[in-house]
Amino acid sequence: MKSEVKIPQATTKRLPLYYRFLQNFANEGQERVSSQQLSEAMKIDSATIRRDFSYFGALGKKGYGYDVKHLLAFFSETLDQAEPSKVALIGVGNLGSALLKYNFQKNHNTHIVVAFDSKAPIEGKLVSNIPVYPPELLEEKYQEYGAEMAILTVSPRSAQMMADRLAAIEAKGILNFTPERIHVPERMQVLNIDLSVELQALIYLIRNQEE
Amino acid sequence: MKSEVKIPQATTKRLPLYYRFLQNFANEGQERVSSQQLSEAMKIDSATIRRDFSYFGALGKKGYGYDVKHLLAFFSETLDQAEPSKVALIGVGNLGSALLKYNFQKNHNTHIVVAFDSKAPIEGKLVSNIPVYPPELLEEKYQEYGAEMAILTVSPRSAQMMADRLAAIEAKGILNFTPERIHVPERMQVLNIDLSVELQALIYLIRNQEE
Repeated sequence: MKSEVKIPQATTKRLPLYYRFLQNFANEGQERVSSQQLSEAMKIDSATIRRDFSYFGALGKKGYGYDVKHLLAFFSETLDQAEPSKVALIGVGNLGSALLKYNFQKNHNTHIVVAFDSKAPIEGKLVSNIPVYPPELLEEKYQEYGAEMAILTVSPRSAQMMADRLAAIEAKGILNFTPERIHVPERMQVLNIDLSVELQALIYLIRNQEE
Repeated sequence: MKSEVKIPQATTKRLPLYYRFLQNFANEGQERVSSQQLSEAMKIDSATIRRDFSYFGALGKKGYGYDVKHLLAFFSETLDQAEPSKVALIGVGNLGSALLKYNFQKNHNTHIVVAFDSKAPIEGKLVSNIPVYPPELLEEKYQEYGAEMAILTVSPRSAQMMADRLAAIEAKGILNFTPERIHVPERMQVLNIDLSVELQALIYLIRNQEE
């Protein structure tokens, strides 16, 4: 991004989604798209879409909408992952194992390259073809495998300690699946995914609508 | 919620988080809390917190902040799950199996009670102590087990078809882990969690900061 404007995190998180939906429109041969069409396809209200796009300097024209090719080129450049992203996974429990198997096959250039688990032998073992080492080798193996960021699927009580160790080896970001809110230096990025909170939010939405 | 104001979905999703953090403050014996303190603890900017709270009719006082007990009572009432929520899980692949094992143990009243998978035998089998049936029994078993909502962890190509079948039996909501955006009747609630998008967003945040 060459822009100086600070883009809100909520907008940033929608960017890969916009990209995916625009690709669908392009595949269908559509040359332009309105915020209403995107809104219906994505289930995001159109005012939000227009505001998001304005952050990227993409301004639709009234009665015309957005140029699909132009937007795609812009998003593709923005999301460009030409340089492969290598990810370490910490905590091979139920969720960690599932993520190892899943391994983000749809993200062409992004893969989990190494994992850590307290039950792994010191010489390492393979899970879904990914080497898993005990946590005492975190610093050594994280760097040896060239990981840039980490997925945290440890127990909540280990979350901050692992975040501190990741900060010390200059990890660039953490995808945090634990319910703990972790504290990291400002230069690091953290995204939180708390599955219990998501389920509670769904229940709340349902109950809220029932009344 | 007795309020007539329509609360944005993003705000709704933060509600269980607010509840958890306020409990922490209460446990530490704190009687009041400022939006700044919540902001630092939760890593959400304080303007967002003040706006969210205003939707709930909770107005902090300048130089005093919010009354912790009062807020807790309000959120507790709002999130009240006295009536247990029973959830069906559809698609026992890697992620589905992990969710069955995890089974939201921290949500006291919410559990996966039944699951469906195309590889399950017609008489059902137990996975992590939860009965799993083939999809042709969805309508029958969903109702037999009293499920109210569903978690979708099927392949993307089955997502809409399953959503349609859930709509037909009046499911109240779907927690959608597939990358498909599903279409449902307006009375149904959908929350989407796309793990690839989350990872791409993290990478984007990192790259965006590097420049």
